[in-house]
Amino acid sequence: MLNFQYFMPTRVIFGPDTLKQLGDTPHLPRGNKAMVVIGESGVMVKQGYLATVQSQLAKQDVQTIVFDKIRPNPESDIVDEAAAICRENGVNFIVGLGGGSTIDSAKSIALMATNDGKYWDYMQSGSGGGLEPNKDALPIVAIPTTAGTGTEADPWTVISKSGTNEKIGWGNDSTFPALSIVDPSLMLSVPPKQTAYTGMDAFFHATEAYLATCRQPASDMLALEAVHLIAHTLPQAVANGDNLEARTIMAWACTAAGLCESYSSCISQHSLEHALSAFHPDLPHGAGLVLISRAYFGFLAACGEERLEDLALAMGDTLAESIDEEVSGVAFLDALDKLITDIGLADEKLSDYGVTREEIPTLAENALTTMGALFDITPVQMSIEDVIAIFEAAYE
Amino acid sequence: MLNFQYFMPTRVIFGPDTLKQLGDTPHLPRGNKAMVVIGESGVMVKQGYLATVQSQLAKQDVQTIVFDKIRPNPESDIVDEAAAICRENGVNFIVGLGGGSTIDSAKSIALMATNDGKYWDYMQSGSGGGLEPNKDALPIVAIPTTAGTGTEADPWTVISKSGTNEKIGWGNDSTFPALSIVDPSLMLSVPPKQTAYTGMDAFFHATEAYLATCRQPASDMLALEAVHLIAHTLPQAVANGDNLEARTIMAWACTAAGLCESYSSCISQHSLEHALSAFHPDLPHGAGLVLISRAYFGFLAACGEERLEDLALAMGDTLAESIDEEVSGVAFLDALDKLITDIGLADEKLSDYGVTREEIPTLAENALTTMGALFDITPVQMSIEDVIAIFEAAYE
Repeated sequence: MLNFQYFMPTRVIFGPDTLKQLGDTPHLPRGNKAMVVIGESGVMVKQGYLATVQSQLAKQDVQTIVFDKIRPNPESDIVDEAAAICRENGVNFIVGLGGGSTIDSAKSIALMATNDGKYWDYMQSGSGGGLEPNKDALPIVAIPTTAGTGTEADPWTVISKSGTNEKIGWGNDSTFPALSIVDPSLMLSVPPKQTAYTGMDAFFHATEAYLATCRQPASDMLALEAVHLIAHTLPQAVANGDNLEARTIMAWACTAAGLCESYSSCISQHSLEHALSAFHPDLPHGAGLVLISRAYFGFLAACGEERLEDLALAMGDTLAESIDEEVSGVAFLDALDKLITDIGLADEKLSDYGVTREEIPTLAENALTTMGALFDITPVQMSIEDVIAIFEAAYE
Repeated sequence: MLNFQYFMPTRVIFGPDTLKQLGDTPHLPRGNKAMVVIGESGVMVKQGYLATVQSQLAKQDVQTIVFDKIRPNPESDIVDEAAAICRENGVNFIVGLGGGSTIDSAKSIALMATNDGKYWDYMQSGSGGGLEPNKDALPIVAIPTTAGTGTEADPWTVISKSGTNEKIGWGNDSTFPALSIVDPSLMLSVPPKQTAYTGMDAFFHATEAYLATCRQPASDMLALEAVHLIAHTLPQAVANGDNLEARTIMAWACTAAGLCESYSSCISQHSLEHALSAFHPDLPHGAGLVLISRAYFGFLAACGEERLEDLALAMGDTLAESIDEEVSGVAFLDALDKLITDIGLADEKLSDYGVTREEIPTLAENALTTMGALFDITPVQMSIEDVIAIFEAAYE
């Protein structure tokens, strides 16, 4: 019998040019002092997005403090540093403007702006302190500029512990953004490679949520929609970055996949990838997922996971007739191969990012330790030997 | 280009026997005094549902005041009366236990427990005072015992002004339930006729939301899911009320259709029906919708509304091959006829409920006055003459 919880309290305002609504929306969190969190790359400044956000907030009499030190695979020390600034300045809410790393950092900063101690005290696995926060996070406004993480529609934030190889996801009801503005026109300038990586992150959120044992009817629908749209649109967005229609479809697919993270969950493929990018911070999360995906889903297909057939159908226009039930997993693997080729990522290898065969047992151990909970909702049981075998297959 | 707002902050706990979670959920609103709102029929007492709710709340140290005066098509005086009791007793939150009339009343009572004046002062159309409430409603817990209104997943409450023929929908962000427990085992005892009426209310929420011009991708998916499930399952739930699987599917379809009311909206068919049941309070809302539906959707079909084809496809297992594009609206009308016949409502007539042909112009005027806003998001323009013609066709 159906049994689930449906909860995603964020207000998502979606559409080209909706950033301009920030200045008069009645749904901005209360208070007149905000921290705007951006990446250290300078892209948000150069594109003028930061200035737009600041002028829109000024229309609502909100002063801003800019924190511009976020790097890809953001670390816990930076979260603690920014949170101290929030406390010193009486900041009322946090705006995350940028990609997943930036918005996740904004969420974690919002949590630590109201709670004592260090961010890692509150992590629940690995070397985390296991504490429960006493207070809700400050309200969060998410303004994504990539179509990838879906963090605008879920409570999750992924941070690495400074100086270690632990990359752990966390979230509670207060780290759902209060308001997310998903404006695809902010995504027009994302370069092709990053478009491909982030788009595949969204793709795997949807595929994994469709397979997770904690799925529900709404996540199934949203997942199949996202998989369908990404398979058909991501190649266009990669090839023609200034195609606003393709960017808009990708933005919705990414938000839909983010909703899947709230109504269902990722499975252990994300645990494996977090281990990879924790040890190799220059490996983009989406690239890491792509590089292990054929081995990972090959393992699920070999275990007879029947839902891969639905995903294959969602990816192809004309597969319906040709799928033989016994090879339905293979049809998904073929469609995945084609998509990866169509977006120009077929030639990447794990060794390009410095991953060595020798570290595979360490990676497997890390995957099970830091994000072990995702193995419990993966439809197939996996031992550490299985995880090692998947990494080995991905490495070949 | 896609442009929408996605917002539905209620936490929905769904599944057979989930009512038992009320006693230990951490998501109950704060405070130790609740008003439990039930219908005057005595069904909630007789079935033991009230006792269960009270004992579950007692586990959380919540005392209850029972307000048991809600009738079908509830009136504004009752709302004001119950709200006064809440104020006198310092009630912290309101529990609505029952069908749509009860839960809607709970929402309106929650609003008036914190705001001055009379409920009708805050209505925005008809003879409403047009005031905006100064305060949020008290938190609301919705526990539906029928699969119909979907009020557990939307902010809307429909109340009639005492002593008049005005039946008006209202809602704001604070009238989304904080928590909804959708337990299909509470629906096993609903009699066949009421199962049919309430199920068709959910069916029309979904069909109307699919046609509304303010639709969005998520409402489209949920609407087609609900239409598909209701067309295939409602006849079973009517024929075998104790079929828990059918009740569970219907409960999800109803909640999905309720979500459609949050992400999209009803259209003017609901305006027409509200006029009918405002003048004839003994006419169940779902029955009123069924009785005007063929005329109403016939009008849309004649106007060439193409989305009726998608609805026809969702209703039928094997229609795909046979639908001629030029008659796609007709396919929906045929499927609707079949469904109405399958659930035993084919022989009902408006005159059975005391509706007369002479009052049709008054009904049309009322539909446009009290719920006129829904005409703006109906995909086809309708004049008062059109509305009269639809009522006339429904009467024949």
